Amino acid sequence: MTDAPTLPTLPMAAAHRTVFFVSDGTGITAETFGHSVLTQFELRFKQIRLPFIDTLEKAYDATRRVNEAYAIDGKLPIVFSTLVKADLSKVIQEAKGLHMDLIQTFVEPLEKELGIKSTHTVGRSHNTANSEEYKNRIEAINYSLAHDDGQSNKNLADADVILVGVSRSGKTPTSLYLAMQYGIKAANYPLIPEDFVREKLPSGLLAYKHKIFGLTILPERLSEIRNERLPGSKYAALSNCRYEINEAEAMMRREGIRWMSSTTKSIEEIAATILQEIKTDNDE
Amino acid sequence: MTDAPTLPTLPMAAAHRTVFFVSDGTGITAETFGHSVLTQFELRFKQIRLPFIDTLEKAYDATRRVNEAYAIDGKLPIVFSTLVKADLSKVIQEAKGLHMDLIQTFVEPLEKELGIKSTHTVGRSHNTANSEEYKNRIEAINYSLAHDDGQSNKNLADADVILVGVSRSGKTPTSLYLAMQYGIKAANYPLIPEDFVREKLPSGLLAYKHKIFGLTILPERLSEIRNERLPGSKYAALSNCRYEINEAEAMMRREGIRWMSSTTKSIEEIAATILQEIKTDNDE
Repeated sequence: MTDAPTLPTLPMAAAHRTVFFVSDGTGITAETFGHSVLTQFELRFKQIRLPFIDTLEKAYDATRRVNEAYAIDGKLPIVFSTLVKADLSKVIQEAKGLHMDLIQTFVEPLEKELGIKSTHTVGRSHNTANSEEYKNRIEAINYSLAHDDGQSNKNLADADVILVGVSRSGKTPTSLYLAMQYGIKAANYPLIPEDFVREKLPSGLLAYKHKIFGLTILPERLSEIRNERLPGSKYAALSNCRYEINEAEAMMRREGIRWMSSTTKSIEEIAATILQEIKTDNDE
Repeated sequence: MTDAPTLPTLPMAAAHRTVFFVSDGTGITAETFGHSVLTQFELRFKQIRLPFIDTLEKAYDATRRVNEAYAIDGKLPIVFSTLVKADLSKVIQEAKGLHMDLIQTFVEPLEKELGIKSTHTVGRSHNTANSEEYKNRIEAINYSLAHDDGQSNKNLADADVILVGVSRSGKTPTSLYLAMQYGIKAANYPLIPEDFVREKLPSGLLAYKHKIFGLTILPERLSEIRNERLPGSKYAALSNCRYEINEAEAMMRREGIRWMSSTTKSIEEIAATILQEIKTDNDE
């Protein structure tokens, strides 16, 4: 934006809309939700996070910032808010903006249907720091870290899932995400050329075959990713990537291991898919 | 639940409500949002995730499952949905439930205000696997893993933030969360007894003091956490935890390092707070 407008007044066609995520907590809910709605509009948005708005003073301050954005943009800012307290919410609603109030919109019909009043406590996306669920998540993160990249054969009996795949097929981020988001203990093991020569799964895994889930990836994409890391190496060469992927897929087929391709999927999509697969095995 | 009801018909006062999270994607948005609304009601909920509902057939199947839950519970299930396609959404709406349709509720007013139609593409909470933002996140995760627990002094110049604190003060999960959720390159360094004797920060960090952010924790809580790991050890003893925390806080004060307590905070809250602090330094 080096071409400053010549008139110092409101620019008539601002290149963007300003979007605010206002929350009395972390703002993660407002932001996650806002993103998934905004991706449906092919526009550029300037995004501003305003977390921890938990006093009237901060609410007035937030309102002032929304109004400032309106004055600068000449267009109504879009305000995604998750303010549990009605008085704070009311203050924000006075700002000049298009208001997407997630809580107020849905809490009232819920109160009616459930026949009880909301406690109007500040929403926390993942419970409080001392809850059982929270402890499980931290434990799962530590477990997944200790069992990253085949680091340890210990306690594999405790794993909820063991991801396998060639180097850079997406195992590590997926394991960490499963732990962080869902409290799933996810170990991960690389399938390496030695395994392909032996034509066997790493021996430490044999007892846990029912927990194994494979990740594969298109050789072209794998080569691209590996080249970013070790440009021009044999490791990254397309021919080598093709060889490894072929062998890995053949092994998974032979061993009856479920697998999916990570090529065009985000971590979230891979994790959610694996979660469904694990669940189908057990209860739900 | 060993006491089965004697009458095999609809239990009149079911112990729970069934809640569905229905999505054409991972369901993370519906679930994150649903949780933060439901935590405001002191009730037990049975939660069922139905991700990847992206065909009419799957939508009808989801509808059938909601109706089944209604038949069993004798109470309307609560249905949080994020279905972008209007035809799929319409199918779900026919299920007997209290519908919280996140997309349809907000997309229409947005279309009106923005003056353009939504593309009705399936929302993805974190963009597609090939976007620049996505690559940054993966890079940040790899960076944070490689710089966990003081493993490496290399490339600290690339860090967006360097977390310091005593062992088990919450550095590792926070670093990984910052990377995963926000694409922040977060290194972390333990403050250990040797540092307290020397009364100096680890020497590798001195050049990056402006990027350091400290985590502290109440000694009682720290002792509890460490005792889960190494019960009865000196490491976990309350007296030792008190010593380490005192020294760590004294050092941070002396060095002018910003810090916060992780005692009662979730990873999400710690991460969002740090993010605000980092931002205030730079742009926003």
